[in-house]
Amino acid sequence: MSTNYPWHWIIEWSTPGTAHMHAVNKVYAFGQSKFQKWIIVDYVDLGKALVIDGKIQSSLYDEFVYHESLVHPAMILNGNPKKVLILGGGEGATAREALRFKSVEKVIMVDIDDQVVEVCKKYLPEWHQYSFYNSKVKVIIDDAEHYIDNTDEKFDVIISDLVDPEEAGPAVRLYTREFYNKIVNKLEKNGIFVTQSTSPVLTPTVHAVIFNTIKSVFKYATSYYSYIRSFEGIWGFVIASNDINVENVKNLDVDNMINKMAEGKNRYYDNESHAHMFNVPKFIRNILEKEKRVSTLSNPIYLPA
Amino acid sequence: MSTNYPWHWIIEWSTPGTAHMHAVNKVYAFGQSKFQKWIIVDYVDLGKALVIDGKIQSSLYDEFVYHESLVHPAMILNGNPKKVLILGGGEGATAREALRFKSVEKVIMVDIDDQVVEVCKKYLPEWHQYSFYNSKVKVIIDDAEHYIDNTDEKFDVIISDLVDPEEAGPAVRLYTREFYNKIVNKLEKNGIFVTQSTSPVLTPTVHAVIFNTIKSVFKYATSYYSYIRSFEGIWGFVIASNDINVENVKNLDVDNMINKMAEGKNRYYDNESHAHMFNVPKFIRNILEKEKRVSTLSNPIYLPA
Amino acid sequence: MSTNYPWHWIIEWSTPGTAHMHAVNKVYAFGQSKFQKWIIVDYVDLGKALVIDGKIQSSLYDEFVYHESLVHPAMILNGNPKKVLILGGGEGATAREALRFKSVEKVIMVDIDDQVVEVCKKYLPEWHQYSFYNSKVKVIIDDAEHYIDNTDEKFDVIISDLVDPEEAGPAVRLYTREFYNKIVNKLEKNGIFVTQSTSPVLTPTVHAVIFNTIKSVFKYATSYYSYIRSFEGIWGFVIASNDINVENVKNLDVDNMINKMAEGKNRYYDNESHAHMFNVPKFIRNILEKEKRVSTLSNPIYLPA
Amino acid sequence: MSTNYPWHWIIEWSTPGTAHMHAVNKVYAFGQSKFQKWIIVDYVDLGKALVIDGKIQSSLYDEFVYHESLVHPAMILNGNPKKVLILGGGEGATAREALRFKSVEKVIMVDIDDQVVEVCKKYLPEWHQYSFYNSKVKVIIDDAEHYIDNTDEKFDVIISDLVDPEEAGPAVRLYTREFYNKIVNKLEKNGIFVTQSTSPVLTPTVHAVIFNTIKSVFKYATSYYSYIRSFEGIWGFVIASNDINVENVKNLDVDNMINKMAEGKNRYYDNESHAHMFNVPKFIRNILEKEKRVSTLSNPIYLPA
Repeated sequence: MSTNYPWHWIIEWSTPGTAHMHAVNKVYAFGQSKFQKWIIVDYVDLGKALVIDGKIQSSLYDEFVYHESLVHPAMILNGNPKKVLILGGGEGATAREALRFKSVEKVIMVDIDDQVVEVCKKYLPEWHQYSFYNSKVKVIIDDAEHYIDNTDEKFDVIISDLVDPEEAGPAVRLYTREFYNKIVNKLEKNGIFVTQSTSPVLTPTVHAVIFNTIKSVFKYATSYYSYIRSFEGIWGFVIASNDINVENVKNLDVDNMINKMAEGKNRYYDNESHAHMFNVPKFIRNILEKEKRVSTLSNPIYLPA
Repeated sequence: MSTNYPWHWIIEWSTPGTAHMHAVNKVYAFGQSKFQKWIIVDYVDLGKALVIDGKIQSSLYDEFVYHESLVHPAMILNGNPKKVLILGGGEGATAREALRFKSVEKVIMVDIDDQVVEVCKKYLPEWHQYSFYNSKVKVIIDDAEHYIDNTDEKFDVIISDLVDPEEAGPAVRLYTREFYNKIVNKLEKNGIFVTQSTSPVLTPTVHAVIFNTIKSVFKYATSYYSYIRSFEGIWGFVIASNDINVENVKNLDVDNMINKMAEGKNRYYDNESHAHMFNVPKFIRNILEKEKRVSTLSNPIYLPA
Repeated sequence: MSTNYPWHWIIEWSTPGTAHMHAVNKVYAFGQSKFQKWIIVDYVDLGKALVIDGKIQSSLYDEFVYHESLVHPAMILNGNPKKVLILGGGEGATAREALRFKSVEKVIMVDIDDQVVEVCKKYLPEWHQYSFYNSKVKVIIDDAEHYIDNTDEKFDVIISDLVDPEEAGPAVRLYTREFYNKIVNKLEKNGIFVTQSTSPVLTPTVHAVIFNTIKSVFKYATSYYSYIRSFEGIWGFVIASNDINVENVKNLDVDNMINKMAEGKNRYYDNESHAHMFNVPKFIRNILEKEKRVSTLSNPIYLPA
Repeated sequence: MSTNYPWHWIIEWSTPGTAHMHAVNKVYAFGQSKFQKWIIVDYVDLGKALVIDGKIQSSLYDEFVYHESLVHPAMILNGNPKKVLILGGGEGATAREALRFKSVEKVIMVDIDDQVVEVCKKYLPEWHQYSFYNSKVKVIIDDAEHYIDNTDEKFDVIISDLVDPEEAGPAVRLYTREFYNKIVNKLEKNGIFVTQSTSPVLTPTVHAVIFNTIKSVFKYATSYYSYIRSFEGIWGFVIASNDINVENVKNLDVDNMINKMAEGKNRYYDNESHAHMFNVPKFIRNILEKEKRVSTLSNPIYLPA
């Protein structure tokens, strides 16, 4: 090499004309499961990261932003979460955050890919903090829908931490109205459902349709947003409930509730971050206003859209 | 070519190990001025864009987010801006936004690069909307500091829309304490200064030092943030005044003030966007807390840092 | 930009998993004709270059290697070329080389794209050396096949300097047996046909099929190769005749013949380069041996293959 | 990912403005030794490959072209090689080719990097074909110069299969006149020295200086060239001797000699490939003619140059 430029790169394509390049410092492990190709790398800019099918899942740089954003609003809006269901969540960090809530008695994590779960156990201790081994946690290797169809359990909080609905991937049907209708039936009274919902700027249509679909199923639903540098943009979440009004919660006293309900300290989610997350930039509100479609099994939304 | 992948790209390097790739659909114009290399392209993802020395200045996709973020908070916090000074701002969109305020009588725009200004006049009408030709506007081709040193004018609002402080670029001294001290002297009573201040996530040190430097000069100063996809991240702004308390303005009634003070409708900046911008994610607050340096002529901050 | 890495690139994709990146120093001109998207750039590594639809056509770095390889063997094997037909050849360098042969009385150049021809006239004087304005040269803007179908002229040498047979491009039918049969009828006694034939290493199937197709039409045909750095590999040419045995010419005394027949000095093609070109590396011979297909209108070959 | 473009890439930078991108299908192993960072990958275009410090060492696609080019001319020009010394050659394929010669009694391979040797043993059986375990082969982990300084052995053929002389790398002094003078003393009567000598097109200065340096030490020396797609260009070799005239061997009857001297069949090197290799394109001859420098310890040549 005639330069000292980095030579090992992962190029994450956001659109056919947009990509983000990250230089790889080191490879921890690499493999191909039944479902997906995964690699755990050390990025020059983001540190250790899990990449599945060319898409970063999270990095040490800001996994806490993603996982606190995903877990905490649902938990405090529920107020007293005892049983938590996590769909996906292979890194174990979603379970880690759920376990911080003192009321939690049981966390069930359903992930389709046992190879990825094993790899996360081994290589991502900074993420899971041994939550896999916590006696309150049960890991089930199963398709999320198959699990939902066959369980008798109900939950206070259901967290969907699934991969994006890629056309060729396994998750498209897990973002449809039919699936969300099944979710409703697995929620306890005052139950909350929350899901990551792709980026409102990089994949605005998919994001808006996920929001619409959930909104068409639940009585209350709202979206909120965190900037996650690892994902190269603002990331969307949709939170919903049939009993708790999750809308118009911009001024929630998060600090107080986290302080009462959870152990340890938050690294991201607090009053001011909450206000940032739930006050939505106008360009995102515009996207939501324009898109009317919902995703159904017969007419699903998926990436690229 | 054996594929239909795009082949014409601009690769914007954020760090030696991070880059953003944008496919170019079309080149409008390309040149090299005394100060910088510029190109006006049509990006596949962002539409028409001005790129200077490899760094996107703004694109049609969201230049309004940037320019409303830069101009409007300062104008409404001043309350009655008559004379506005713009440092840089070659695209003419900063002037365009300033002119929307009914109280404005004079806009002076000082840009060092006459070639870039001419090119923007010719190729970026969507940006400037003919503000260059408005009788209230005066364009002066000069170094910003040289202008400041030699003018007798004072201003209600001074807006710094300069290129980043690149080590090899012309703007490093325009981000130092010495320069900001000169700015103070050119502000009218209740005058407001605002500047773009790089990205708190991509170049956190530079951002924090700019904030500290301004904070060390003005009685009141605060930073705020908008996500700008063209810039691949959250972008920072610092606003300051010796007379107006620009801090703790999270709950400003922006809608009402814009409605009274400005003509036309905002595309981005409104009450909810304002709350998003001024409620700062904790990871950014942490950056500001940790960095103590200020930038001075003898010890300036610049990129890469 | 936080680095001084080049930021303006053309990425030439050879296969879906292979690409060559060239940094652009300067853009001379850029446009879109009825047929193709073209750009004339100054590459950091190769100097001035013409790129059409993402594929470099030639660069100042080694256009002489390509154009001498394409023109000279055919001219000296004919021995006394008076009338030369060039299909394509927009840069004007193929005509330039043909005109160096003293016996030449007429050069007809048929190119489909008048915009590209005009652009080459204006921006590529180093290539054409004003051959466009030589009284022996006639430029006809036409589809090559349409011209062939309608002319009564016959030629001593026909040179096909067309773009590659891209699936979506205009040249696929100009590499079929049906077209080559038309070529045969336009050759004078002792006439020679030569064509560029893509790279035997980057697109081996297409190269081999072009060779087979020509071989199926002409009594004598052989392929030869030059390394052209601008094309990132060995490049193939096929030469054929019904009267002159163009095979087994490895030991031709090129120096003597060029000296007698042409004006000026060759920069590449001489005895030793000729031996290099006509002695074929075994891995290329293997490719030719394995491929049996020919390209026909009903079953044409094209890129990607 | 919103496209199906490959996402895992190695970008090999040839110059600050030129790079070659290869998509990675699979990672076999990855590590960092005391001397270098290495990765064994499966490339989409080239298959399995060893990459050291961002530079491909060889791939299954055409390692045979490289290794036959490096080993066979020296062996047949010697005529009766019994003792062979390989400097570098970690993949084991240079030893594999040397062992094919029936006269060979001993092959000593000196490589500085035991980790890379172990990795090649384990992951590159297609290369070494178990040559590491052949009783005629002795692998010594040592610096090449230290070994040369301390051995009493002399050799019929010495093959330098070292990494390029990178400025920061360990091999710069192994391309100097002082080192080549030591090599001379380790050659038997009729001994031959051969070395890879970088690319005459990508790094012409370094190549020419290596040639000049060897030419200044040996009575007879010549360079020859093979196109190696894995290396993205023509690759140079320099062969030298004080007893055997290795120059002017263009018409050697390689087929006959290989047939008599070696077991098995060559995949690349035969009469016609030999003629291709030893007939040098004029643009390379020009490079050699213009460069006059030699590399010495006090004024060494290295990459980038």
